[in-house]
Amino acid sequence: MTGTSDADAPVALRRTSPPIIAVDAMGGDNAPEEIVKGAVLAVREMGLRIVLVGRRTEIASLLAEHDALRAIPVVHAEDSLAMHEGALASWRRPRSSAAVACRLIRRGDADALVSAGSTGGVVATSTVRLRTQHGVLRPALAVTLPTGETPTVMVDAGANADAKPEMLVQFAHLGCAYAQTAFGVQRPRVGLLTIGSEPGKGNKLVRRTAELLSAAAEDSTVMDYRGNIEGHDLLARKVDVIVTDGHTGNVALKTVEGTAAFAMDAVRTALTSSVAAKAGAVLQRRALRGLRERLDSETYGGAALLGLNGTVVIAHGDSRARGIAHACRLAHDLAAGDIGEQVRRRVHTRPSGWLHRLAQSEGPAEGR
Amino acid sequence: MTGTSDADAPVALRRTSPPIIAVDAMGGDNAPEEIVKGAVLAVREMGLRIVLVGRRTEIASLLAEHDALRAIPVVHAEDSLAMHEGALASWRRPRSSAAVACRLIRRGDADALVSAGSTGGVVATSTVRLRTQHGVLRPALAVTLPTGETPTVMVDAGANADAKPEMLVQFAHLGCAYAQTAFGVQRPRVGLLTIGSEPGKGNKLVRRTAELLSAAAEDSTVMDYRGNIEGHDLLARKVDVIVTDGHTGNVALKTVEGTAAFAMDAVRTALTSSVAAKAGAVLQRRALRGLRERLDSETYGGAALLGLNGTVVIAHGDSRARGIAHACRLAHDLAAGDIGEQVRRRVHTRPSGWLHRLAQSEGPAEGR
Repeated sequence: MTGTSDADAPVALRRTSPPIIAVDAMGGDNAPEEIVKGAVLAVREMGLRIVLVGRRTEIASLLAEHDALRAIPVVHAEDSLAMHEGALASWRRPRSSAAVACRLIRRGDADALVSAGSTGGVVATSTVRLRTQHGVLRPALAVTLPTGETPTVMVDAGANADAKPEMLVQFAHLGCAYAQTAFGVQRPRVGLLTIGSEPGKGNKLVRRTAELLSAAAEDSTVMDYRGNIEGHDLLARKVDVIVTDGHTGNVALKTVEGTAAFAMDAVRTALTSSVAAKAGAVLQRRALRGLRERLDSETYGGAALLGLNGTVVIAHGDSRARGIAHACRLAHDLAAGDIGEQVRRRVHTRPSGWLHRLAQSEGPAEGR
Repeated sequence: MTGTSDADAPVALRRTSPPIIAVDAMGGDNAPEEIVKGAVLAVREMGLRIVLVGRRTEIASLLAEHDALRAIPVVHAEDSLAMHEGALASWRRPRSSAAVACRLIRRGDADALVSAGSTGGVVATSTVRLRTQHGVLRPALAVTLPTGETPTVMVDAGANADAKPEMLVQFAHLGCAYAQTAFGVQRPRVGLLTIGSEPGKGNKLVRRTAELLSAAAEDSTVMDYRGNIEGHDLLARKVDVIVTDGHTGNVALKTVEGTAAFAMDAVRTALTSSVAAKAGAVLQRRALRGLRERLDSETYGGAALLGLNGTVVIAHGDSRARGIAHACRLAHDLAAGDIGEQVRRRVHTRPSGWLHRLAQSEGPAEGR
């Protein structure tokens, strides 16, 4: 890949061509083997356009194993983020594979980044290098909960541990843009995650956000605000977008994962605890396998970091090839559907006056 | 029940006699039928001492159905809290069954309250009428997560949507007192619920609390602080006590309940989706029933409101007789183990200087 031809093309032309996904080959517990394998899957089974970023010789020899040396170009990056590295990594490692992938996006040589690296490191690196879209206060992590055919989107799943009410209102818009782009939901129903179903329930952040969302929903045809959502409604398909701060959202997401794993383990134990049950289990192996796949986070491709100049998808750290391929497909769908433009429109068509007045009346938010 | 004999007895004598549980007969979705039935179970199967509080004639006729008129005394209360009533109910309804039960405790005629009424209403009513123990900043809701033989305790599960770091430190002590009293854990391991395993991860509240807990654990032989706990560790038995604010804790608890129910539904569907699977399901019915019981919140008796002058257990709003009986047993165990004294000791043996200095350096906490 020479890297200049795409960047020189006019924007309108580039949009109509399929997006190019830059995959961080060095990020994740199973890097680079499973990442490269996943990229090969994405190209062969899904027909996506992929660039692998990382240590060239290592990646090339893996590609050779799959007989895919000519199917996927490689961009060299000598450094990589360690799994334990957090926000500081973005400054410390300008030559990391994630940072080099971001540079490809900025230069117009790629449209999206997929990484299974540490969430903190990838969020920080891509925020610093891709910058937030004009008018977006903070980028936010959107995840899809395994609720059925059309999954429910939860924003923020961990990018902003401390959030302000006006950020949460934007998270709602980011989530709506996501639901629309990835799943074709025309008028997403929005719920606010809190600790009671009645209005006025929750902490200060939620109570203020509820006021702002009610106001925003009044003069908008694109958001259908449905009020409070509780923890037991997360998988109940009551809404399309669940809005929360990054602390609560991350705890809730991991609680879903942990409880599903716990329940499946318990079912497995129960089903093999007696001779009769064991005989039954043999008959049911296939049915249970299908269920496990449904609850499996790999199928959903990972979290999207929304609000940046470029599409970013963060796969689970322990993703295997199939998970990486699904993350690539998600990145492709978001970039092809021009999620950036969807976000821009939603953030800019808000009556600009009231949000900023409200934001200022709360005092300056730190870190903006 | 004449009500004066117990109150007149010296404290030391009263402690050695079995505690008396005042059961709010009018609280909960299935009141008063299932509540009365649960009280009868608690007396007959568990040998507990119960007083029922509520509309006398209604309760008496239900007791007569169970042939238990002479086994359980009734204290009349004409009013009751509606299920949707929140904090204001404590002021509006001084003659509610929950308020009258609290009066019994204050007078020394009962040791504990069990109610399946609305959490907000019961928390507010009992906080106002029983008052917080000396030195306790805020009462907190402790729940037990269904992790196995010795459950993990989570505090706070929803009493304080907005909390301060020094409150969370006290929640840790309340949770330790609970784990010790109810489950005999001598040196409870304490974890702080947040969004990463490394120190320094989480929102401001958590980061400050982590500093305080580390300091508290240094000069203490009664708490074993193990650092951060994530959402997927809730059911992993890594610690005995999980500390969190009421907003995060309530969302996490309800997410566990919702996900477990979702997974069990999905298992049931998977197991009956084909003829072979259906045949298997018949063989496994008993195994699955045992599991459902384990995940069933009824078995765990409900949430305990800790830090008040008197034991308060809040059962699930939809509790049936068995759930109420388990709640009564929990209340009995906590009162018999003198949880109040355990809390007093823990809160008072803290080096009083540092906590209050720290609390003050943060500015006055509202509502204290």
